Amino acid sequence: MTYRAPVAEMAFTLRHVAGLDRAIAEGLHGDLTPDLVDTILEEAGRFANDVVAPLNRIGDTHGTPLKDGAITMPPGFREAYHAWVEGGWNALPGPVEYGGQGLPAALNAACVEMWNAASMSFGLGPLLTAGGVEALSRHGAPELRERYLEKLVSGEWTATMNLTEPQAGSDLSALRSRAEPVGDGSYRIQGEKIYITWGEHDLTDNIVHLVLARLPGAPAGTRGISLFLVPKVLPDGSRNALRCAGIEHKLGIHGSPTCTMVYEGATGWLIGEENRGLACMFTMMNSARLNVGLQGVAIADRAYQQALSYARDRRQGRAAAGAEGMSPILAHPDVQRMLLTMKALTAASRGLCYLTAAEIDRGHRAPDEAGRRAALDRASLLTPVAKAFSTDIGIEVASIGIQVHGGMGFVEETGAAQHLRDARIAAIYEGTNGIQAIDLVTRKLPLQGGAVVRGQVAAMRRTAERLLREGTPALGLTAPRLRACVESLDRATGFLLKALGSNRPEEALAGATPYLRLFGLAQGGAALAELALAAGAALAAGDTDPAHAGRIALARFYAENLLTAAAGLEETVMAGGGFLQDADLALAS
Amino acid sequence: MTYRAPVAEMAFTLRHVAGLDRAIAEGLHGDLTPDLVDTILEEAGRFANDVVAPLNRIGDTHGTPLKDGAITMPPGFREAYHAWVEGGWNALPGPVEYGGQGLPAALNAACVEMWNAASMSFGLGPLLTAGGVEALSRHGAPELRERYLEKLVSGEWTATMNLTEPQAGSDLSALRSRAEPVGDGSYRIQGEKIYITWGEHDLTDNIVHLVLARLPGAPAGTRGISLFLVPKVLPDGSRNALRCAGIEHKLGIHGSPTCTMVYEGATGWLIGEENRGLACMFTMMNSARLNVGLQGVAIADRAYQQALSYARDRRQGRAAAGAEGMSPILAHPDVQRMLLTMKALTAASRGLCYLTAAEIDRGHRAPDEAGRRAALDRASLLTPVAKAFSTDIGIEVASIGIQVHGGMGFVEETGAAQHLRDARIAAIYEGTNGIQAIDLVTRKLPLQGGAVVRGQVAAMRRTAERLLREGTPALGLTAPRLRACVESLDRATGFLLKALGSNRPEEALAGATPYLRLFGLAQGGAALAELALAAGAALAAGDTDPAHAGRIALARFYAENLLTAAAGLEETVMAGGGFLQDADLALAS
Repeated sequence: MTYRAPVAEMAFTLRHVAGLDRAIAEGLHGDLTPDLVDTILEEAGRFANDVVAPLNRIGDTHGTPLKDGAITMPPGFREAYHAWVEGGWNALPGPVEYGGQGLPAALNAACVEMWNAASMSFGLGPLLTAGGVEALSRHGAPELRERYLEKLVSGEWTATMNLTEPQAGSDLSALRSRAEPVGDGSYRIQGEKIYITWGEHDLTDNIVHLVLARLPGAPAGTRGISLFLVPKVLPDGSRNALRCAGIEHKLGIHGSPTCTMVYEGATGWLIGEENRGLACMFTMMNSARLNVGLQGVAIADRAYQQALSYARDRRQGRAAAGAEGMSPILAHPDVQRMLLTMKALTAASRGLCYLTAAEIDRGHRAPDEAGRRAALDRASLLTPVAKAFSTDIGIEVASIGIQVHGGMGFVEETGAAQHLRDARIAAIYEGTNGIQAIDLVTRKLPLQGGAVVRGQVAAMRRTAERLLREGTPALGLTAPRLRACVESLDRATGFLLKALGSNRPEEALAGATPYLRLFGLAQGGAALAELALAAGAALAAGDTDPAHAGRIALARFYAENLLTAAAGLEETVMAGGGFLQDADLALAS
Repeated sequence: MTYRAPVAEMAFTLRHVAGLDRAIAEGLHGDLTPDLVDTILEEAGRFANDVVAPLNRIGDTHGTPLKDGAITMPPGFREAYHAWVEGGWNALPGPVEYGGQGLPAALNAACVEMWNAASMSFGLGPLLTAGGVEALSRHGAPELRERYLEKLVSGEWTATMNLTEPQAGSDLSALRSRAEPVGDGSYRIQGEKIYITWGEHDLTDNIVHLVLARLPGAPAGTRGISLFLVPKVLPDGSRNALRCAGIEHKLGIHGSPTCTMVYEGATGWLIGEENRGLACMFTMMNSARLNVGLQGVAIADRAYQQALSYARDRRQGRAAAGAEGMSPILAHPDVQRMLLTMKALTAASRGLCYLTAAEIDRGHRAPDEAGRRAALDRASLLTPVAKAFSTDIGIEVASIGIQVHGGMGFVEETGAAQHLRDARIAAIYEGTNGIQAIDLVTRKLPLQGGAVVRGQVAAMRRTAERLLREGTPALGLTAPRLRACVESLDRATGFLLKALGSNRPEEALAGATPYLRLFGLAQGGAALAELALAAGAALAAGDTDPAHAGRIALARFYAENLLTAAAGLEETVMAGGGFLQDADLALAS
C-alpha cells in the first residue's frame, strides 16, 4: 500500500478551518485564486504519490552510508530531489524577490504534509532549507543574500541548522563552538555539532550550514551566541574546513542522514548582529515547529491509509451473526474504533496545523499592523500546540496502525512499523514536546496579559455554539462534548494564569503537558466541528458528495470518544504541582 | 544502564496486593514461608541482573541468523540458558511430580517479570515451554507425559505453540494443517505455521512443537481442531520431517527467532481428545496471557529504570531560579511528571498482574471446590485486563522513556528505543489487545450472571473506602479519585451487561477497548492504594524505610494525574455503538 495525498480533504480543511478562501478574498494573497489552490494541491499530490512515496521504504532499508566523509543517499533520492527542484516545489513558499513563488504558508502546509507523508526522510531536508531561507532573508546582509538565497530558494543547494552540541541540547546556553573574526569580514569557526539533519549528502553541489557559535569575549549564556553561515564549498570553489565525522544509527528516518559536523577553522560569515544568534533562530521557530507538527499529521495519515487498506483486505472472523464466511476485519467494531481514532486524530491535528499556518500568513500579510500583530500572537500561541499535539498523535496513530495489522504489523516488511519508528523523532526534535508545553504555558499564555489565549478560547466557544444552533441530529453529542471541552480548557487556562501571576511557576510547569493536550484536543475538536458545519451546509445546499456525511460522522466520533478526555485533563492540570513535593521520594528507586 | 530487579517492591506487592502471605498462612503453598519467598526473589534478581540483563542489547544487535534450516542464537544465550536450567529457574513453576518446584504462580509472576525485563527475547522462550508443560501435564496421555514432561519442566528441552497460519491469525477456525493417523498411535502432520516463537534454535538438543491440525473428516471451524505433540528429534534419535523455512525480520525482540515452520509428514502424537485441541489450548490461556502481560510490566520497568538513571545524570537548564549551573533534568517538573507516570503505570500493572496470578493459584489450590471455582472465575475476569492493560502501558512507558532521553533516545546505541521496539509485540501476540477487550466484555462480564465482575468492583470499592477512612493527608485526592473511578467502572459495567442482555452485542463490542482501559486503570489504582495503605501502616508502626513514603506519593500521583481519565472513559463506553452506523462513511477515504 502506497500513499495517496488526500487532496480533497486538504482543500476542504484549508477552506473551512484555515479560512484560505476568505484570506484570498481579502486580497492577502495577491493573484492567487481558490481554483489555483486546487490545481497546485492536485499537482503536488501527484508528485508526492508518484515520485516521493516510492522512496519511503527504500530510504528505510538502504540508509545513508558514510564513507570518507561522504554520504551516499538512498537509491532514487537524487533523481527525485532534482525533479522536485525542477518542479519548483522547493520554491513554493520562498520569497518572490529570490525566485520563490511566495505562496501562502497555509497552502505550503498542505504540501509539507504531502512530502512528509510520502517520505519523511525526503521531506525533512527541504524543511531545513526553508528554515535557512527564512533566517537568511530576514537577517542576512545583502551580499550574503545575493550569494546564497536564490540557490536555497530553488533548492539547488540545501541548508542545515547547527545548534546542538553534546553538552548543549535543549539548553543552548551551554554552547561552546567558537567563531573568531579574521578581519576581512569573515570568521573562523571551530567546534563540534551533533544531530545535524542532512549535514552531508550527495544531492546538491553545496550545503549551506547555519551554525551557532560564540565570539571571543561574548557574554556567557544565550546572550552570547551568534549565527554564522558556513558553506561546504566556498565561493572560490574550494572545500571549506568542515566535515561530517559520523552519522547516528537511529530508530527511524533512516533515509535522512543525522550527522556529527566538525568545524575545524571553517570560514563563515555572520548572520544578523553579534550575540543575537538566538533571536535569528527564534524568528524562524514558528514555521519550523509548525513544519514538524505537520510531519506528525503526515505520518499519521500515511499510517491510517495503510491500516485502512489492510483492514479492507484482511479477512478474519465473522463480524455479525448472519455474515457468510470470514469478514474483512474492517467490519469488526473494535477495528472500526481503531481506524476512526486514527482518522479523527489525523484530521484534528491537520486542522490545527493549517489554522496555525493561516495565522502566520495573516501575521505577515494583513494590511494593518494591529491585524498582523494579533495574528502573529495567535500563531505564537498555537505553534507549540500544533507541534506537540500533532507529533504526539503521530506516534499514537502509527502505533494503532501496527495494531490493526496484528502480527503482520510487527514484521518490518509490512511497512507499518516504519511509520512508528519514523514518527518517534518528531516529538523530540525542534524542541521536545515537554519544551513546547513549557513554552505554551510560560511564554504564550501570558501574551497580552492572557488576552490572546482568552480570545482563542472564545473562538472555539463560538464554534461550539454554532454547532448547538446549526448542528444536525447526525452529530449526536458533538456540540455538548465540544462545549464541555472548551469550558475545561477555559478553567484550566485561568488556573495556570493565576499560578503564573501568583509567582507559583512550578505549579504551571507541572501541569504544562496535560494542559497542552487539552488545548490540542479542543482546537482539533473545533476544527472538526468547522468541517462538519461546512459539510452540513453543503448537504443542505444539495451537494451530494458522500464525503460530507463522512465529515459529520468523524466529528461525532471524535467528540463522543476522544473529547471525553477533557474533564480528566482539566482535573489533572488543576491538581497542580502536588506531586512535586514528594516526587524525589517516589522516584528514589 | 543495566537492569536491577526491584526485589523489595516485588515482595511488597506480592504481600499486600496479591496476598501471598495470607495464602501461605492459609496453607495453600505447603512448606513455603515468606522468608523463602524473599530468598527466591533475591536469588532470581541476582540471576536476572548478572546473567540475563547483559544479553539484552546483544540479542537486539545480533539477531538470530538462519542458515540451512538452523538458527544461531545470539552470543551468550546458550551459556545463559544452560545456567538458567542448572539454576532450576525453568522448573520453578513446574509440577513437582516431574521435577518441578511447584512454587506459586504469584511468585513465578515476579520472576517472569525479572527475566523479561532483563531480556525479553531470552525470557520469551521459557514462557512457551511453560505453556507446553501446562498443556501436556493436563491433557497428555501418560506415555507422552513420561517421555517429555521432565525435560520440559527442567528446560533441557523447550516447547513451542503452533497455532497461526497465514490465513488463520486471530480466527483459528480457518486453520488448514492436517494430521493423518498412521495406525500405530502416531500421526503424520502436514502444514505450514507462521510466527512460531523459538521454533528453531541451538540452545537445546530437542524442541517439542505443539501443533494444531485437523484430522480427516473433522468438522469445519474450531470444533474440528486437534492438538499434536511433534518433536524436532524423534524418540529413536532421528530428525523428524519438519523444518524452519524462514524467520521474520521484526521491529523488535530480535534475539527471539520467529519462525515459519513447515511440517512435511512429520510424526506427531495426539494431546487430549480428537477435535478438542482448542480446549487444550484454552486451559493454558490464562497463564500464557498473564505472562505476556508481565512482559508489559517488565519492559515498562526496564524503560523506567533507564530513563531515571539518565534523568539523574543529564544536566540541562536551571530548574529553579536559585539553582547554580545546570540542573539534572530530573529536577524539571515536566521530567518528573514523565518519570512518575512511567513508575506509577508500571507499579499499577504489576499489582494487577500479580493479583491475577494469585487468583490462578487460589483457583488451583484453595481447599474447597467453591473457593477454587470463585478464584478461577476472578482469574478469568482479570486475565484479559492484565494482558491488555499491561502491554498497552508497556508501549506507552517505553515511549515516554525515549522522550526523557531527548535526541539520545532516538539513537539506537542508547538502548531506550529497543524497549519500545520490543514492547510493541506484546500488545499483539497471545491474542491482540482488541481480542482481549472482546473476551473481557462478551465472555467474562457475563460470568455467573455478572456476579464475578460485580464482586471485583465491590472489592475495589472497599479499598477506596478503607482509603477514605485510613488514608493520610499525604494521599491528597487519592481516595475520592479512586472512588470516582470505581463508580465509573461500575456504571460502565452495568451499561455493557445491559447491552449484552438486550441482544445489542455491537454496542458492547464498540466500547470494549475503552472499558478494558477503565477496568485496568481502576484495578491498578486499587493495587497502588493497597500498597499505600500498607506503607502507611508500616510507617505508623515505626518502620523507617523511606520507600513507604514513596509508595504513598506514587499512589497519589497516579490518582491525581491518571485516574482522572476514568470519567471520560465511562462517557466513551456509554456513547456505545453510535459510531458504527456511519463508520463506513467516515472511513470511505
